Amino acid sequence: MIRLSIIGSGNVAQHLIQAFSKSTETELVQVFARNPESVSHLVSLDRIVSDLNELKPVDINIIAVTDNAIASVSEQIPFENHLVVHTSGSLAMEALDSKNRKGVFYPVQTFSKSKEVDFESIPICLEAANDADFQKLVNLAKAVSHSINNVSSEQRKALHIAAVFVSNFTNHMYQIGDEICDKNGLSFDILKPLIQETANKILTLSPTEAQTGPAKRKDTQTINAHLNFLTDDHQKEIYKMLTKSIIDNGKKL
Amino acid sequence: MIRLSIIGSGNVAQHLIQAFSKSTETELVQVFARNPESVSHLVSLDRIVSDLNELKPVDINIIAVTDNAIASVSEQIPFENHLVVHTSGSLAMEALDSKNRKGVFYPVQTFSKSKEVDFESIPICLEAANDADFQKLVNLAKAVSHSINNVSSEQRKALHIAAVFVSNFTNHMYQIGDEICDKNGLSFDILKPLIQETANKILTLSPTEAQTGPAKRKDTQTINAHLNFLTDDHQKEIYKMLTKSIIDNGKKL
Repeated sequence: MIRLSIIGSGNVAQHLIQAFSKSTETELVQVFARNPESVSHLVSLDRIVSDLNELKPVDINIIAVTDNAIASVSEQIPFENHLVVHTSGSLAMEALDSKNRKGVFYPVQTFSKSKEVDFESIPICLEAANDADFQKLVNLAKAVSHSINNVSSEQRKALHIAAVFVSNFTNHMYQIGDEICDKNGLSFDILKPLIQETANKILTLSPTEAQTGPAKRKDTQTINAHLNFLTDDHQKEIYKMLTKSIIDNGKKL
Repeated sequence: MIRLSIIGSGNVAQHLIQAFSKSTETELVQVFARNPESVSHLVSLDRIVSDLNELKPVDINIIAVTDNAIASVSEQIPFENHLVVHTSGSLAMEALDSKNRKGVFYPVQTFSKSKEVDFESIPICLEAANDADFQKLVNLAKAVSHSINNVSSEQRKALHIAAVFVSNFTNHMYQIGDEICDKNGLSFDILKPLIQETANKILTLSPTEAQTGPAKRKDTQTINAHLNFLTDDHQKEIYKMLTKSIIDNGKKL
């Protein structure tokens, strides 16, 4: 049985609490939440603390707070020489205070509080300062996920940037599509099967093989018609830049 | 029984041939393909013609060729006053020659020859010059899809642009993510569950509600760290523009 504590109450923390609560191989000893009510629907009140000094040392202490607060929270942990990990995609392992043993437990996923996720399919990227701690993190990750990855701080930074492109920027493309539909009296629902299929295609094709559309075909007539149709300068600039990028990409191949 | 012919042999034509071949409510009378071998795996040779003059009039004639060829192909059809539709997202119905009755049958999907699709879930956008022809198209669409939509030429143009954003541009985001992974010794597979979840989220949340990431949080520290990390000027420009767009979007709300 791996004994762990989770420090934090935001999106990532809440999904971790749910995942570890379901596992039979872990025991969630404590959750730190400045406002206990934010997690009281997920964990019994006697296990919630709102003062870092009340934290007891356990096998693995997971800090799941905003990047800016990780260093300061890790400093305030009231014990030493225990394994303390953060869950950030962008921060190096070294951001953690040196009084405890350091590690990283980064789940590559987009979490929203109101949307359940299948945690088992979420890739977990692990890093630790020594092999024994790395193995502990592997065992912890295996309790909740099928996909365990050894990823260095430098690689994790790259992965986080790639995640911004494929998730945050992709969602922004959905948002622009939604705006265009709305402005033209169309239901965004018409685009949903296309969005699903676009995401499904790259399970069997590389993104380069999966690329379709006027930019890929260098269909300047359609591209110009689209640019003439768009009245929002903002959308027009994005359309131009991404079209150029797809065309340039084709030249590289 | 609706009797139809399909003129074309590309991605869209091939997926239409497959969908209509399965339906018990339609009879695929002929397929026009300049090169009969391109569709011989989908339809028996006696029904393939490679000369437009061999086409016989049927209830509905579907032109599924590239946008640039639609006007010319519709002119060369060897009969008059029959229902002839195109499948283009961007061309107006009026692009068709006036000697036949005009309509549009636009499936909103991204088609690749090597990737099967669930045709029943594909929204079909219909347009016709009169009610009787529109009803014929509704019956045809119902034979292969659950989602039938009445969409004008002007709306269809907007929808096609929105589709470029949510599908073509989104796939380009995947491609950039793939490049970043590749350059940093990471498997693109790590990002696939994130890509799936990003597409799934907008089935229950609006894109605005689903937005996450450093731009949404106005986390300038992470944004600057990402820009410093990116060495490809191209990727850097796209990162800057889309980050600004997400931040500006937040201000509008």
